[in-house]
Amino acid sequence: MEKPLRIAIAGLGIVGSAVFRILERNEQLITPRAGRKLQVVAISDQERNKHLDKIKNGIVWLDDARDMASMPDVDVIAVLIGGETGIALEVSEKALNAGKSVVTSNKALMAAHGTKLASIAEKKNAQLMFEASVAGGIPILKTLREAITGNRNISIQGILNGTCNYILTRMTETGLSFSDALKEAQEKGYAESDPSMDIDGHDTAHKLSLLAALAFGETPSLKNCPIEGIRRISALDMQFAEELGYKIKLLGTAHLTDQGLEKRVGPCLVPKSSTLANTNDVLNAISVQCDALGTLTLTGRGAGGEPTASAVISDLIDIARGNPAKPFGIPASALKNISPTPPEKRMSGWYIRMQVADKPGVLADVSAILRDENISIESMLQRARSQSDSVPIIMKTHITNEAAMRKALTKIAALIFVKEEPYALRVE
Amino acid sequence: MEKPLRIAIAGLGIVGSAVFRILERNEQLITPRAGRKLQVVAISDQERNKHLDKIKNGIVWLDDARDMASMPDVDVIAVLIGGETGIALEVSEKALNAGKSVVTSNKALMAAHGTKLASIAEKKNAQLMFEASVAGGIPILKTLREAITGNRNISIQGILNGTCNYILTRMTETGLSFSDALKEAQEKGYAESDPSMDIDGHDTAHKLSLLAALAFGETPSLKNCPIEGIRRISALDMQFAEELGYKIKLLGTAHLTDQGLEKRVGPCLVPKSSTLANTNDVLNAISVQCDALGTLTLTGRGAGGEPTASAVISDLIDIARGNPAKPFGIPASALKNISPTPPEKRMSGWYIRMQVADKPGVLADVSAILRDENISIESMLQRARSQSDSVPIIMKTHITNEAAMRKALTKIAALIFVKEEPYALRVE
Repeated sequence: MEKPLRIAIAGLGIVGSAVFRILERNEQLITPRAGRKLQVVAISDQERNKHLDKIKNGIVWLDDARDMASMPDVDVIAVLIGGETGIALEVSEKALNAGKSVVTSNKALMAAHGTKLASIAEKKNAQLMFEASVAGGIPILKTLREAITGNRNISIQGILNGTCNYILTRMTETGLSFSDALKEAQEKGYAESDPSMDIDGHDTAHKLSLLAALAFGETPSLKNCPIEGIRRISALDMQFAEELGYKIKLLGTAHLTDQGLEKRVGPCLVPKSSTLANTNDVLNAISVQCDALGTLTLTGRGAGGEPTASAVISDLIDIARGNPAKPFGIPASALKNISPTPPEKRMSGWYIRMQVADKPGVLADVSAILRDENISIESMLQRARSQSDSVPIIMKTHITNEAAMRKALTKIAALIFVKEEPYALRVE
Repeated sequence: MEKPLRIAIAGLGIVGSAVFRILERNEQLITPRAGRKLQVVAISDQERNKHLDKIKNGIVWLDDARDMASMPDVDVIAVLIGGETGIALEVSEKALNAGKSVVTSNKALMAAHGTKLASIAEKKNAQLMFEASVAGGIPILKTLREAITGNRNISIQGILNGTCNYILTRMTETGLSFSDALKEAQEKGYAESDPSMDIDGHDTAHKLSLLAALAFGETPSLKNCPIEGIRRISALDMQFAEELGYKIKLLGTAHLTDQGLEKRVGPCLVPKSSTLANTNDVLNAISVQCDALGTLTLTGRGAGGEPTASAVISDLIDIARGNPAKPFGIPASALKNISPTPPEKRMSGWYIRMQVADKPGVLADVSAILRDENISIESMLQRARSQSDSVPIIMKTHITNEAAMRKALTKIAALIFVKEEPYALRVE
């Protein structure tokens, strides 16, 4: 048996503690799989007092995780702390430069500095692995990097944020408003007290940038990626979507065509019978469409200590075994910027909710605007008159391009009888 | 760039041809991913005349695929021919003994000789990869071998046969009888003229034995695995299942507990809202339940030329990159026989269809038998009287053990008013 793989864990929060715990619990299973022992030799965390038992057992404590990078008896550092820069970046860079491997769950770090870090790793013959940074325990990065590598990838689409998916599921199932569902998610620990990273779509965008890197060889980047969150979704939208045969999900989408790469994050209507529509609560799901295999979908737990730790540990085992796959599947130097698909080539159907004055002529004006932009209506729903003086109208369009839709939406918003900015969602 | 990986393809049927075609079509994508060119240098097939164009282009033709194993300029042989023994076994064994790697789609070969072949591969420092042998293009073997390796696996359950799933989907959706649905599948090319390997469950059992090997470290084996096909399922069962909130799917299941390993192949009722229930037509799906990650489900195309070739090529790319993972994730010598869970510890609910004389007292007798075996009934359905003198009765039981259920079924079958052997399916 080879020598143990000596691991330093930077950050013993929910994920780091789970990594520590599972390495102990499943040691008898992990050692023969890895071909060697996975041994935690050093730890660092904000709260030393919580980890006195580990320190007593001979594990080295470091006040500053950055010092792990210069420990001669450390092979790999598990960077399980957040932040796009700061300690996470410093320890990763220093470790890779010292020829040590890095495993991280930090999506912001990888989205911002992944290319640079991968270059260092490749130069120093070290490994940089980040399965845990996207979709928790679902092995979508390994799948893209190693399991469908004969394919030309066409699109990748996923429910990548458990917080949003929990909120949307609750809104769908119980008719809760967005703010009530958010409050419930916060009470259950599924949403942070400041939930904006999740509910405004930024978390999904970070993950999407890494998926696009692996699927299409694009330099990880948030550029050219419109990001829309879920704050404007109403209980009414859930109801109308249901009537039309859909559910509303926050999706990250990347789609490569001859016209360019279309990346976007936003709520979409997905057909009720689809796997994505049936991915509920805090679950994540990712569908990849590619030329030989067709569509492959992975569903599972996208967050939480143990699921995320599962991804960290499989990366550690890969390093113990000596899997030489490059961080992004191709050399970091081969990653490139792909030009974005222009709005007039971004095709989809649309769902539009308008709050309009309950007066004659309204429909005629809206319809005329859509006709002028060459957008054809597939179906329309209108609620019976309410006591207020405005009513919601919902339209679902046939497939059209985004440029036309944006123009139409601007014109509709300017109509005198339209009471609030129309709300438009893509139909997948 | 490293030297090309030199590939010999044994068998240019649907899968082999697709491998050849995709390697050409996606060469520009594959080379940077593999870090080197994947070059087909030799081919062999039953029909030489179909491949004259390839031979003209400088690819070596061999009448006997076994000769590939002794070609000095071949690094890996893609064994894409069927048969548990014969040429498939001979060329694989010879190649591995010569230190060449083997990639195969042959599940029967791997189920019967996987341990021996893996031992040779490990000894000779060659690779043996067989992703294509289970669930076509779905990368379930890599997932088990490399992506969830920190976990203790609890169970694995899958729709592993596209032919059966197509037949069952058509029966569910259109009310077709089994034989009509089979005929349709044959006309569409989804079922063979002799469909017994598929519809009697043997194909699923082969695949399950490989999944159990990777998930639980069991020596691949069909032993201790009751196998039941789908011939006895009637349109009536589909209808009753629907009324109870289920769909019927042919599942391969392996479940490890302190009581042993429960392996089985057979039709089961699965809840309508589950991913497995919504996996239709020729799609496959596999769910793995494990301790840290929870449940992970993969859905995709489990058969067909290009999907299966996708798996073959990702194996070839892994070999080109030098991924050192062992064929079964752990050393072949560590695979072991796991004792089967005894029938009195195999727990599940059951669906029972009985065809009984339409007379008083029938229910009382059946109920008494179930009570005597300590089996409690959860729900019951009975059709209105028909013109025949017998009627179907359906019962769904609470969770019970298989030994009790088998005893009860034998007693029920012996009742004078029971017109045919009761048909019993597990409820998952």
